[in-house]
Order: sequence, then C-alpha cells, then structure tokens
Amino acid sequence: RNRQLAEFGTTIFAEMSALAVATGSINLGQGFPDTDGPASLLESAAEAIRAGKGNQYPPGPGVPELRQAVAGHRQRHYGLSYDPDREILITAGATEAIAATMLGLLNPGDEVIALEPYYDSYAATIAMAGARRVPVTLHPPRFELDGDALRRAVTPRTRMLLINSPHNPTGAVLSRAELAVIAAVAIEHDLVVVTDEVYEHLVFDDAVHIPLATLPGMRDRTVSISSAGKTFSVTGWKIGWVMAAPPLLDAVRTAKQFLTFVSGGPFQYAVAGALNTLGADFYTGLRDDLTGKRDLLAAGLTAAGFRVYQPRGTYFITADVAHLADDGLTFCRELPSRCGVVAIPSTVFYDNKAAGASLVRFAFCKQDHVLREAVTRLATLG
Amino acid sequence: RNRQLAEFGTTIFAEMSALAVATGSINLGQGFPDTDGPASLLESAAEAIRAGKGNQYPPGPGVPELRQAVAGHRQRHYGLSYDPDREILITAGATEAIAATMLGLLNPGDEVIALEPYYDSYAATIAMAGARRVPVTLHPPRFELDGDALRRAVTPRTRMLLINSPHNPTGAVLSRAELAVIAAVAIEHDLVVVTDEVYEHLVFDDAVHIPLATLPGMRDRTVSISSAGKTFSVTGWKIGWVMAAPPLLDAVRTAKQFLTFVSGGPFQYAVAGALNTLGADFYTGLRDDLTGKRDLLAAGLTAAGFRVYQPRGTYFITADVAHLADDGLTFCRELPSRCGVVAIPSTVFYDNKAAGASLVRFAFCKQDHVLREAVTRLATLG
Ligand SMILES: CSCCC(=O)C(=O)O
Ligand SMILES: CSCCC(=O)C(=O)O
Repeated sequence: RNRQLAEFGTTIFAEMSALAVATGSINLGQGFPDTDGPASLLESAAEAIRAGKGNQYPPGPGVPELRQAVAGHRQRHYGLSYDPDREILITAGATEAIAATMLGLLNPGDEVIALEPYYDSYAATIAMAGARRVPVTLHPPRFELDGDALRRAVTPRTRMLLINSPHNPTGAVLSRAELAVIAAVAIEHDLVVVTDEVYEHLVFDDAVHIPLATLPGMRDRTVSISSAGKTFSVTGWKIGWVMAAPPLLDAVRTAKQFLTFVSGGPFQYAVAGALNTLGADFYTGLRDDLTGKRDLLAAGLTAAGFRVYQPRGTYFITADVAHLADDGLTFCRELPSRCGVVAIPSTVFYDNKAAGASLVRFAFCKQDHVLREAVTRLATLG
Repeated sequence: RNRQLAEFGTTIFAEMSALAVATGSINLGQGFPDTDGPASLLESAAEAIRAGKGNQYPPGPGVPELRQAVAGHRQRHYGLSYDPDREILITAGATEAIAATMLGLLNPGDEVIALEPYYDSYAATIAMAGARRVPVTLHPPRFELDGDALRRAVTPRTRMLLINSPHNPTGAVLSRAELAVIAAVAIEHDLVVVTDEVYEHLVFDDAVHIPLATLPGMRDRTVSISSAGKTFSVTGWKIGWVMAAPPLLDAVRTAKQFLTFVSGGPFQYAVAGALNTLGADFYTGLRDDLTGKRDLLAAGLTAAGFRVYQPRGTYFITADVAHLADDGLTFCRELPSRCGVVAIPSTVFYDNKAAGASLVRFAFCKQDHVLREAVTRLATLG
C-alpha cells in the first residue's frame, strides 16, 4: 500500500453519495445534476454508437473533431487560440486531467501552492507525484485571495500554483485583480500555473469567468483544464480537456497515455457537437436556471437559521453550521438520520482544519421541488 | 517535467496509429478490431443514454449491475467468487486498472518483476510510482517462462510480480505448470501478483486461460484485471475491472478515485448486459473467427518469408524481420512507405533490447479482406 496515499482513504464524495443511497436522503452532496443535459447531446451520443463512431480506440489525444471544437469554444468565449493538434488533449474528465498534469509535471520534493479549501483530488495527485502541497487559505465571508499569504507561501521548492475558479467548494470567482496577483507571482518565480475551470459557465450576478491564460505573459505558463460534465450536465460521461503550450502539454500527455490511454470514444463526438452548436441561449439559460436554484436554496438555508455565504459561481453554497454542531464533519455524518439530507463537510478540503471546521457545502444543481423539500427538511433541525 | 517519465515520450501505439492515418496504411499495429461488438451491446448503450442511466456520476466503484455481472462471469467461467461490493472495482479500461494498482500498492524503491516483453503502460506506471521494474525475458520460439530466471530476479526489495496471460505481444498463454512456478515464488517471498487477463477469451487450439487466482493460496494475494474492450470489441469504451481481496482492492480504489473518479456511466450498464447474456455461442464464435484470422495472417506472413511465432492467445502475431531490416523499430517506421502496412516493433517492450531487436507484432483482429490485402502488400517486400 502506497504510504503517500495513507491519508486518502475513501473520497468524501463516494462516502457521502453511498450514505445518501443507504439512507434514501436527498443528496445535496456531490455536484451532479438530477436532470440530464440537452436531448440533442444525448441523441448524438446514441447516434455515434450506432454509427460506429468512437467504439474503437480514438486517437490518444482525442478525436480531432473534439479538439477542434474545444479550440473553437475557447476562441469564441475568451479570444484565446490553441492549436488543436499540439495544444489540446482530451481526458477522462477534469479528474484525469489533473492527475496527468501532476504526474506529468511534478518531481518528488516539488511544492505546489493551492487555494484552500481544495477539491480532494488535488491533494491526492500531488501526493502521488511525491510532491508537497502548500495551502493558501481563502477566508469567509468572501473567500478572496490574500496576495500576501500567496507571496509568503512561495519557497525555492515551489514549482506550481494550482488555481480553481469558479472555486469549488466556496463559489468564489477570482477577479481580474486577484488573477493579476497570481500572474505576478508566477512570472516573478517562474512557476507553472494549473487552472481548473470546470465551472467556467456557472457564474451568477455580475461575476465573469476570466481565464488566467488571458493575462499578459500567462498563456504559455498556464495549463488550463475544463470539461463537459458540469456545463452540459453529463457528469457520468467524464469528457474533459487540457489546453497548454506544447512543452507543458507534451509532459501532461506522456502521463495521460498511461493513466487511461483514451476513454469515452462516442461521447467525444457528441460533446464536439454540443460545443459547436450550443450558443448564447444555452449558456444564458443555464445561468438563469441555476441562479434561481441558488436563490431558492440560499433563502431556505437562511430561513432555517444557517449563515450562508452567497456563491458567485459553481453550483455549491457554503454555510456555517456552528450553531448546530461541534464541527461540519460530524454534522454531515449525522444529517441524513437527523433530517434526510446529505451535504459535504468542507473541512475535508482544508489542511488548516480550524479555518473550515464549521463549514458545510450544499449542491443546488437539483430540481426545484427537490430543493424545496430539502429546505423543508433542513428547517426542522433548529 | 517528471524525470521518472523521461524515457516515456509518446506511446508506440499513438505513434504508429498516427502514422497509419497519415500514410493511409493498413493498420495492423494497435490491437483494435475494425468491426464493432454485438449489435445488442451497442443498442443497449444507446438505450442507457436515452433512459438516463449513467449520464451522471455512477458510484465510485462502478454501477452495482456491472460489479454483479463481473462477479457472475468470473464465477461461471472459472469458479471464482468475488463479492461485488468489496472485491470488484470498475475502471477506465485495463489501463486505468493497472495505473491504479501500481500507484495504490507500490512505494518508491519497490521492485516489480514483469515478464518481458511487456505492454508499455506497465513500465510507465511502475515509474510513476517511483518503483523499479525488473524484467524476466520470455524467449522465442515459445516464449515460455524460465522459472530459474524468475527466481533469480527476486531480491529483498521485490514487492510485486506483474503477469499478463494471454500475453501481449507474444501470444503465449501461461500453462498450469508455469503458473505454479509463479505461485510458488509469490508465496515463498510473500509477493502480490497482478495479472492482466484482458485477452482471457482470445485463446486458440487447445490453449486454456487459467486465472492465477484459481491456484491454491493465490486468490487473496492476486489482483486480477480484465476488461470489455477485447472480448466485446468495444475498445473505445474503456470499461475495465479489478478483482481482489479487500485489503488489496481498497488500496487500488484509493488511487483510482483520484485518477478518473469514475467513467463511461452508460457503457457500464451495457457491458453488464453483455456479460450477463452472452453465452458459450458468443465466446466460441469469437474464438473460431479469430482462429481463422490468425491462420490467414500467419500463412501469409510465412509465405512472404517471415519467420512466424504462432500465438496461442491474444490477437497478435510476432514475426522475425531479421532478413529484412537491421532492427524491428526501423522496419516498422519504414513499413508504411515501403508497402502501406503498419506493425508494432516489439523491441519497445524490452529492456533487454537484444532479445527483441528483430521482432515485430502484427494484429489480426481485422476483416479477412483487410488481412488478405495486407499479406499481398507484405509479400512485395522480399
Ligand atoms: C468527482 S467529484 C467532482 C467535483 C464535484 O462534483 C464535487 O465537488 O461535488
Ligand atoms: C491502449 S493499447 C492496449 C493494448 C493494445 O491494444 C495493443 O497492445 O495494441
């Protein structure tokens, strides 16, 4: 058994989803919608299978149609150009993209600075690479980046900054000013920055997703990761992608080849179609719909007595449960039996446990009637 | 860039498949069929997508239906019992199964003994884990296991034996006597054995696939890996599985969670159906069909002047090209322009380069007319 993974047993998502199934609870834990993506997307995957597209190994970097579609989407939405042949790699979701990036770029002893709280696979894949994570904590209520804390975290061993915006679990969206600080630190210390942008289209109110790669001097030192799962509501397909300049992408691809080789052949064609054909209406509709769900859940949690930190992106709300339990982990383990709801204890995403001890994350990517029932149940806690 | 992966650039499969596309050659390189699996299997994947089965994250270990189907298949074919809840894990093909096994079980400095020539992801994932591979060479013409060489390869740092049978690329199938030697060494030195059995149903003549886990004392120290891609001709779906006793499986699952989390939701349901419903007719038909293709290609290669090592399993034939080129790698790089055929240089699967220098691997999982045309082209080489 790998000692570097000793602290990682079962991911909190597997634990909590299993608990939801076992107790028949409403699952506001892991981030997956309870309605599937556009019918045209589903239909085109079914058609690909029937037409024999992707049933055998697609090319290692992904089918050309999808790499071109990813490039087109990146160009249209952010004005960034990537060469589909040398700068784009298709992966088994963002999870494999992150694993391949860590395993492809890091050496034992390297340090990776990540914004805490962080998604659990970051810590685990840094450990697999024999590297060390160095947290910079985002604090409530706004979870902004503390630039001084970031600068203080840099050491001669720092090799990489690992950024996630829109940010899971807090729902923070990095502003241009915060990104500028990250860029300055990266350039000054010659660091690679990895950006996980899977929630790129899930931003609310006046929040705007700004890819770090658009900042001056950043394109060629940034490994950008995104995926289809959250944008198109097909989390079970696990189609993701990496965009980076050739020297970085080559290293990521070398590792990726040996993690899965390829995956999801027919889905690659279907996602290419969605990226190429879904336009402003789709993205605006997605945002409007999720904004309504966010407001519904936030209002319900507030009425039920929770302190709510309003997210500007993702489909997660962070709430404080200090008035209800000693800590968030205990709260989440008891919540199913107390009221039939599952949530995720944010504390598992912190090294600095005190900072997140009473924070809990609720997903709102569920049908309105499900959210209403969850709120009704949570109101009984008091 | 990870220095442990410095020797692994682009996998030979990606290189040679790209060359086949670029030159319009007949691709007898990578092992994927040119006709898709059973219509019922394809149809049930299309139906799963439409019915909303697996479009969102399946459970981390895989959907229960597939874990049960894998257990049933293992029981029916080999009399081995595995608990679907604690001893079976669904992966993104055998490639992820191998990566997760190496990353989950090995520590830096551990030694892994593998039968050489070996599939390239073995070496790469051993390196990712910071471990060291130790080859035991299988020699032509029969590529049998040399038990003394195996025993000599064991050191105090040996932690694992990595076995592949039916064996890619040689087509050898380990006999009960060879497996008994492996078992004896594993038990004497308290080693874990990992068996890659993806070609389990592709055996010819009187060859029989015997899972190592059926040997006395071996079940609980063996991590067995297989997949749907080769058996059901859907290599692009990448649905694989790991079967092992709980302490081993837990360690593999911990790593797997962070490589892809999950993948191929709808395909998991479809493969479960195929495992449950396809019976002796299907497997016999598969073997008969491939036996004919093997004989067709072997006869053609022999007529064209190649020395052919007749495989007893897999869908690969190894041939010697010493009479045609200085070495197999040069031969394979020139073959597309010389005669419009792509093959794989077996030399890339050897550490002991001399042993495999003139060996080349041809895949025969292609339509008969394609194989005939390939043979016609190869006959022009002389
Ligand atoms: C594999 S879990 C991916 C991220 C997510 O969905 C979550 O944070 O809930
Ligand atoms: C990802 S390549 C898997 C093995 C195979 O198909 C081959 O050896 O050709």
